[in-house]
Amino acid sequence: MNEPTAPARRPGGRTAEVRRRVLAATRDLLVERGFDALGIDAVAERCGVHRTTVYRRWHDVGGLLADVLAQAAGDDWTPPDTGSLAGDLVALNREVHSALTTGPPITGALIAASFRSARAAEALRAFWDDRYARCAVIVERAARRAEIPGRTDPRRLLVAATAPLYHELVLLRAPFTAGQAETAAHDTAAGARAGAFTVPGPA
Amino acid sequence: MNEPTAPARRPGGRTAEVRRRVLAATRDLLVERGFDALGIDAVAERCGVHRTTVYRRWHDVGGLLADVLAQAAGDDWTPPDTGSLAGDLVALNREVHSALTTGPPITGALIAASFRSARAAEALRAFWDDRYARCAVIVERAARRAEIPGRTDPRRLLVAATAPLYHELVLLRAPFTAGQAETAAHDTAAGARAGAFTVPGPA
Repeated sequence: MNEPTAPARRPGGRTAEVRRRVLAATRDLLVERGFDALGIDAVAERCGVHRTTVYRRWHDVGGLLADVLAQAAGDDWTPPDTGSLAGDLVALNREVHSALTTGPPITGALIAASFRSARAAEALRAFWDDRYARCAVIVERAARRAEIPGRTDPRRLLVAATAPLYHELVLLRAPFTAGQAETAAHDTAAGARAGAFTVPGPA
Repeated sequence: MNEPTAPARRPGGRTAEVRRRVLAATRDLLVERGFDALGIDAVAERCGVHRTTVYRRWHDVGGLLADVLAQAAGDDWTPPDTGSLAGDLVALNREVHSALTTGPPITGALIAASFRSARAAEALRAFWDDRYARCAVIVERAARRAEIPGRTDPRRLLVAATAPLYHELVLLRAPFTAGQAETAAHDTAAGARAGAFTVPGPA
């Protein structure tokens, strides 16, 4: 995406720049003032892009939120690769814990918005499905290293490792430390080594 | 709570009857029309109780939702007792799966409402904390039967068993069958038997 002929401009040109500004304003407004404050007019005013431009491309709040998540899913994120299943899951859970507890609470705000907008809900599911698919390599590498059975189901294992963080922090709004997130990773790795998360059939 | 001297009346007398009607109307409106349709006036009209009565006792939507959850928490529910850890967790996850997928979607609606009302969020957390505390006996019985180590943490194990259901069905809105819920229970039991969910120290 780099444009070496226009070094002073950000990559992607004017359309990409407008998108960046509009989505940044959407995220900022969502975090600062919540779903009810979101609207084409508020976003346009915040980022200095003409409301007609925002309306034409994103249509409504659902379109804005879906594109925030599509932008997040479109990055080149790769899962941690530490050399062991437990190490990879600990690093992954540290990332999830950090996303849920530090900095602007955009993840929590997007989850809350998914209960208000069907398009945001669809986009959030697509985002998570993509992340879990990318993380399957963690489980596949562990199976190749013979840490766990070859017929271990990646999604079941990955959801088991990460779901307690969302459950405690997002749904129960309970205190849940980074240490507890690491413990959840170790619990899941221990279960996987003992044959949990396997599918029937020959190894 | 039975009142044998007044067999024609429901237990608890008129105050309890008003509460039952008001909370039933709150649940019905929440499920049918969502959080935005909830209000003292709408609830009062729905159940035929004077709005002043509703206002005086519950104050606002947060008060109504908190009492719906307090009423649910005040039941005499006890966790399943099937004779094995896996059996108890399977039965528990069947209950959670059923609550999330069949009948009026009151659980999902209350979770959604918890993102709109701080009082509903607090009450939801108290409800879940109470349920997990009641379920600790599942883990304690399994430890007494020597199925799992004696220093297994009940809450960690119980959240590991149930969190995937909330994650897939409520947050990701992904298809997740009763069979998958049972598999999550078996995965957790297998991990616990292998020593996951233990706390440091002597057994």
